[in-house]
This record gives sequence, C-alpha cells and structure tokens, in this order.
Amino acid sequence: MADETTAAAVQIDPALLERYLRELAVFGAWGETGVSRLVYAPAWQAAQQQIMAWGAALGCETRMDASGNVWCRLPGSEAGASVATGSHVDSQDPGGRFDGALGIVAGLTALQALVAQHGQPRRTIEVVAFAEEESSRFAAAQFLGTRGITGAITPADADAMVGYDGITLADAMRAAGLDPARIPEAQRQPGEIDTFIELHIEQGPILEQAGYAVGIVDAITGLRHSVIELTGRSDHAGARPMDTRLDPMAGAAEIISGVINHAIALGRPAVTTVGRMAVEPNLTAAVPDRVQFTIDARHPDPAQRLALYAHHDALVARVAAERGLGLRMEHVAAHEPCLSDPGVVALLEATASDLGLPALRMQSGAVHDTQRMARIAKVAMLFVQSRDGRSHTPDEFTSLDHAVVGTTLLANALYRLAY
Amino acid sequence: MADETTAAAVQIDPALLERYLRELAVFGAWGETGVSRLVYAPAWQAAQQQIMAWGAALGCETRMDASGNVWCRLPGSEAGASVATGSHVDSQDPGGRFDGALGIVAGLTALQALVAQHGQPRRTIEVVAFAEEESSRFAAAQFLGTRGITGAITPADADAMVGYDGITLADAMRAAGLDPARIPEAQRQPGEIDTFIELHIEQGPILEQAGYAVGIVDAITGLRHSVIELTGRSDHAGARPMDTRLDPMAGAAEIISGVINHAIALGRPAVTTVGRMAVEPNLTAAVPDRVQFTIDARHPDPAQRLALYAHHDALVARVAAERGLGLRMEHVAAHEPCLSDPGVVALLEATASDLGLPALRMQSGAVHDTQRMARIAKVAMLFVQSRDGRSHTPDEFTSLDHAVVGTTLLANALYRLAY
Repeated sequence: MADETTAAAVQIDPALLERYLRELAVFGAWGETGVSRLVYAPAWQAAQQQIMAWGAALGCETRMDASGNVWCRLPGSEAGASVATGSHVDSQDPGGRFDGALGIVAGLTALQALVAQHGQPRRTIEVVAFAEEESSRFAAAQFLGTRGITGAITPADADAMVGYDGITLADAMRAAGLDPARIPEAQRQPGEIDTFIELHIEQGPILEQAGYAVGIVDAITGLRHSVIELTGRSDHAGARPMDTRLDPMAGAAEIISGVINHAIALGRPAVTTVGRMAVEPNLTAAVPDRVQFTIDARHPDPAQRLALYAHHDALVARVAAERGLGLRMEHVAAHEPCLSDPGVVALLEATASDLGLPALRMQSGAVHDTQRMARIAKVAMLFVQSRDGRSHTPDEFTSLDHAVVGTTLLANALYRLAY
Repeated sequence: MADETTAAAVQIDPALLERYLRELAVFGAWGETGVSRLVYAPAWQAAQQQIMAWGAALGCETRMDASGNVWCRLPGSEAGASVATGSHVDSQDPGGRFDGALGIVAGLTALQALVAQHGQPRRTIEVVAFAEEESSRFAAAQFLGTRGITGAITPADADAMVGYDGITLADAMRAAGLDPARIPEAQRQPGEIDTFIELHIEQGPILEQAGYAVGIVDAITGLRHSVIELTGRSDHAGARPMDTRLDPMAGAAEIISGVINHAIALGRPAVTTVGRMAVEPNLTAAVPDRVQFTIDARHPDPAQRLALYAHHDALVARVAAERGLGLRMEHVAAHEPCLSDPGVVALLEATASDLGLPALRMQSGAVHDTQRMARIAKVAMLFVQSRDGRSHTPDEFTSLDHAVVGTTLLANALYRLAY
C-alpha cells in the first residue's frame, strides 16, 4: 500500500473535470442547464459511447455489459478484487447535469490523474457508469443498472415493465442494441469488487448550511413508501351535520399533520413527506367518500426507522378507528438502511484529514446505487455540496470548486486503495 | 280567510302523489331509481310538457316562461298577489327522483285536492316547476330558473355560459325552443307573488334522527366557497431536512384539520367541508410546491356565519405565515343566509299543530330556489325526511308516507292562504 502520510499524492486536473461535465451534459441537453437522459434512449446511448471513448483514451479496457452499464477497467499489476467508483448516467426527466454524472466524470478525472502521476495501479481500478437509477422512464425500473450487476432483475422483468412512453423495457433494450435474454450476464460476483466508492451531489442543503464542500456518508437512509386509503361516506356539504359525518378528509388531514409534525419533532435525520394525494369525488360541496395519499418516511438508523414506521402505523389505525373510516394501508416500497463499511469510511476520513480538506460525516436521505453495490462490495459515498439543496430539476447546481474538492478526495482515496 | 280551526280542511290523494312521482321519474330515468334530467335537454323538455299537461287537467292556465320555468296558474276570484309553491325540475347527473321533483308534484297534488274539495280559491294559486337549480349541465348556471324570475340573468350570460357538453346555454335554450334574447320576459315583479312555499326533501339526516316526517325551515344557510392555494418549495423527500422545508402540504393539513374540527366544536348548524384538493407535482418522493383546496363553510345565522368566516381567514393567514408559505385565497361563491318570513313560518307551524302533525323547526344547510324567490315574495320551506340523509345520488329516497304528511301540510297551508 502507498504511503498514507503522502497527503496530496494525486493532483486532479480541474479543467478536465469541467470539460467532462460540460461535454456529458450535451447528451440529452434540456434548456440552458438541464438534462433529460432516459435509459436506453438515443441520448443515453451517445453518452455511454462517449464515456467508453474517454475511458479508452485513458488506457482502460471498456465494455457495455448486458444491462447497459459501462465499465472502464484499468488493470492492476496484481490479481484480485478491484477498486471501483462511479455513478449513474441516466437523469430525471428533466433533471440537472450533476445528479449521477458528476460521479462518473469524477471517477474518470481521478483515473487520469492516477495514471499520469503514478502509472499502473497494483489493484485493478474500475470506473462504472450505471445504466439507470432514477426510474424516470420506467416507473418500476429504479436501480436497473445495479439490479443487473447484483442479479436482481430477470429477462421476464424486462418484458413486464412498461415505460411512460408505452414501450417495454425489453423493447427499449433492443432499440439500444442490448439483448434482454442476456441480462444475467451483467451480474458481478462477490469478491470481484473489493471496494466501491460513489461520489454524488448531496441533493440537499446540509453541506451548504454547515459550510462544507464535501461529506463522507456513513449510512444511506432506510425508507418506506406507504399508500393510505381512507373511505367514508360522501354527503351534502350543507345538509349533513358535522356530528354524523364519515369524512375521510378530516382523517387524512389529522394523519398528515401528525406524521409531518412528528418528523419535525424528531429532528434530523428523520424525514416524512406526504407528496401525493387523490380525493373522490373531489367536489367543493360534497364530503369526500375516498381520500388516498402517500407517506414517504426515512431514517438511516435501523432501530429508529422501525420506531418511526410503528408511530405512523399506530397513528393511521387510531385516526381511522376514531373517525369510523375504512382503512387500506399498503407499503409499496421499503429499503433497509445501508450502513457504509467502517473501514472505507475511516480511510476516506483519514485521507480528507491528511489533505486538510474538512469533510462532514453525514447520512444520505436519498437512496443511491451504492446501497445495491453493498451486496457485493465494501461501500461508502462522498457527497459534494449542492447549491440551495436543489436537485431533480434543471436548477440543480454544484460549483466546480466543490467538485474539485470531492474529486481530489476520491482520487487520493483510490490511490491509497489501489497503489 | 277560511276558518283556521278546521284542522284537516284538505285531504290529499296519496295515490295521485305516488303516480305523479313515478311518472315524472320516467323522464331522464337513470338505472332503477335515479334520474338524470339536465336543463333544456330532451328529457327535461318532456318533463316540463308533462307538468303543463297535468296542470291543464287540473283546470290551470299553463305556460313556459322565457327562461323555461313552467307555471300552472289557478286563477282566484279576487285580484291581487298570488300564493305560489313548487320546486325545480332538473336533477343532478345522475341524482334521485325526489330532489326538486317532490316539490312540484306535491304542489300539483295539493292543487287537485283544493279544487276538488273547495273549488275556486279567493287568491290565485300558482304551481311552478323551476327550470334549473342544480348547475349539473352548466357549472355557472345554478338557480337559472329563479335567476330568470328575479331578473338576475341576461341574454349575454346565456352566450357566455358553456356546459360540460361544450354547448352554450343560449344554444341549449334554442334547442328547447326558447329564445335567449327573451330571457328578461321571464321576470316576475315584487307584488305579483305574495307568498312562496317550497316543499323539498331534506337531503340530510336531521329529521330521520329526530323522528319527524316534516320540518319547517326558518332559515336557509349562508355559505362561502373559498379556494386556498398554498405555495412552498418542492424538494427531495429524503435529502431535505424537515427544519428547512417550505411544505404546503403541512400547511394544508393543519388548516383542514383546523376548520373541520372548529365546525365540529361549534356544533349544529355550523358545517365546514373540504371536498376538493389538488397537489403539485403530486409525487410520492417530493415535497409539493403547491397545494390547492376548497373550503365550503355554512351557517344560517348571519352573525355566526361571519364569525365562522373570520375564524377561517385568521387560521389560513396564520398557518401560511408561520410556515413561510405563499398564500392565495379567493372566495368564489358567497350566499347570505335567507331568513324565512316569520308570518309564513307561524302559519305553517299553526297548520301543523292543528293537523296534529309534529313538525321540527329547523334550518336548511343546503341552498334552495327559495332564497332567490325571497327577493320578490314572502317565503318559507317545508322539508320532508330523507332516508339516511342521502341526496344527489340515485340512492336518494323519501317514503310515500312522509311525502303524504308534507303534502298534506302544504295543501292545508295553501288553503289558509288562498281560500
């Protein structure tokens, strides 16, 4: 292993990082600052080809796997498990040019500096551009790239998933030159990748408010998405006295206030969001007979997360019972929290400390490919400050200065792991 | 005036009432029990023709006025203002066969008994089938019939109003053989009608729960329809901590709980309903940036109604300010409470008492044509029990026994007023 006391062992090229970012944003450009790059679509294909071309120019072996992930592989002098970095190439519809993309170009920029300044690594280094993370084309596709890598998607799934454009995932893959029958070939086995580090924009305001360029993520939140349907009885808004109503809107409002105020009272990092609601018959002068809404609840601590869910379940059941409402509650998505590997976190913190780069230890409130990669490798994440905490919008912005700090930390961590 | 101590001076014919109800329900029949009879449509035209035929058979002069109201006029032996009764012929889409219709057929049934048992009245009696009350074809048309009668609609309005079917009110009138340019001719002047009594189903559960067949309405509620729009900032449901959110859903839920619970605490007859809501962007994993909802608030007491509105205004403003939300609040409809004429209420109560018919003095939480007729006549209403308080649905039901009680009370009151 390289001398860990050599602080700035690797100097990255800010101009190269800026050029990669700018040129990648051309593929699927949306307005002045946005990107709409949906998995397997032509702009996505062109972006993945560009990434392979950049990797090849850096001396990597490059390939697109059967799920559409692009791997740029710099072979090490020794056999054994590789060190990997990267993020997803797809975007929201439209999203910004940093979400996902920054992690890929940071990996390529780090690789350029490592090769130029230190030659061939001891351990193989891989930079990956995951095919899909955003579920912006296929509602059910989230983590498609890392699901392919971890064996969590089948050819039958590809026939079953239909996109917002009415095209099946299988047909979308074929249009991109991929054969859905070969999806299983994308799988990587435990032991092939030793460590995976994903650099990503924060997508929230914590680093900006605390005054840090970068954060070291020791846990990715656990989340649960629930759909709650309350049923009552539609009645005339004037003729039905309050004391004889079965009003699902009254129940929904009490539950929504309750879960949001509970998360506020718990404080960071607990969050609870009610973002979606549907009311029937949705008339000004009629008590609704049906109100449906979602609860998105997140906590990175495994035990506190379960306590949060239990509080919600009890509140929903109590309000429905007290108000005489019918209740259907379905948990449509659930992710366990993903704890980063303590050794990788320690290495990142030591590297930052030696470089004199202040880094905030923090949790991710958003889900990331890293939590899937944790099934086959040791993982951790680096966050880079987002302006105003905005993401999933063309307004998303991360300064080059902050991106350079994050990429420097990534490059030096890779140096310590691979040289 | 007839001898007021003659209790059951008029005996109505239950079989005739039942036949009228059944035959009127054929026009626009919807399923087994419902009706969809939209203003000026063919089923509406046939119903109004039938009512004119029934009126003519009872010895009335009949006419359809320029707004489509049908008047069946039984001339009195003396000159002077008439005594009128009736209700609206149109229905919800679909609605039940009693809402509106019962008031028309009760008037005709009363007239038949009066003529058969007492001959020509002293004062002219009119039974009216109002053209429109439900705004079920034209969103902006509510009270079209009584607006015509009270001079509150113009030919220009008829060109401007467009129905759910895309047809203008003016074209719909022409299709029914009416000339929109002649709308002003439908107007009746103060002094032409001395007293107007509308019999209507309750549309709520109060009579059923209190064990009364009929109620005497001393006030029609005042109401206000408000549209509240709260704007905040859409953020990632995971990455944005609770303490830095601008969440309009949190504000909406607090306001909705507040206004509904306030009405519950006030008790009858205050009611407040939030029946309609729209959320943007309406995504499970995003804090909304915009939530719009309605408040329908009603109180029949003029002062308490204003206190109710003031409470709502203060709550909405406080929550928006405390949560840093943008606020737009528009009051899209407002009706003053309509107090019944105390003399007419007293006459109805005395008549019920003399007949040995228990009648509950009550308020109407729903709006009615009567509040428009109050501009040109002394008014009151009779309510007849609704099963389970259901209305605006094909499930709406009022028993013949209860309808007979109401019609008997109406006929005897008309006798006291007109003979």
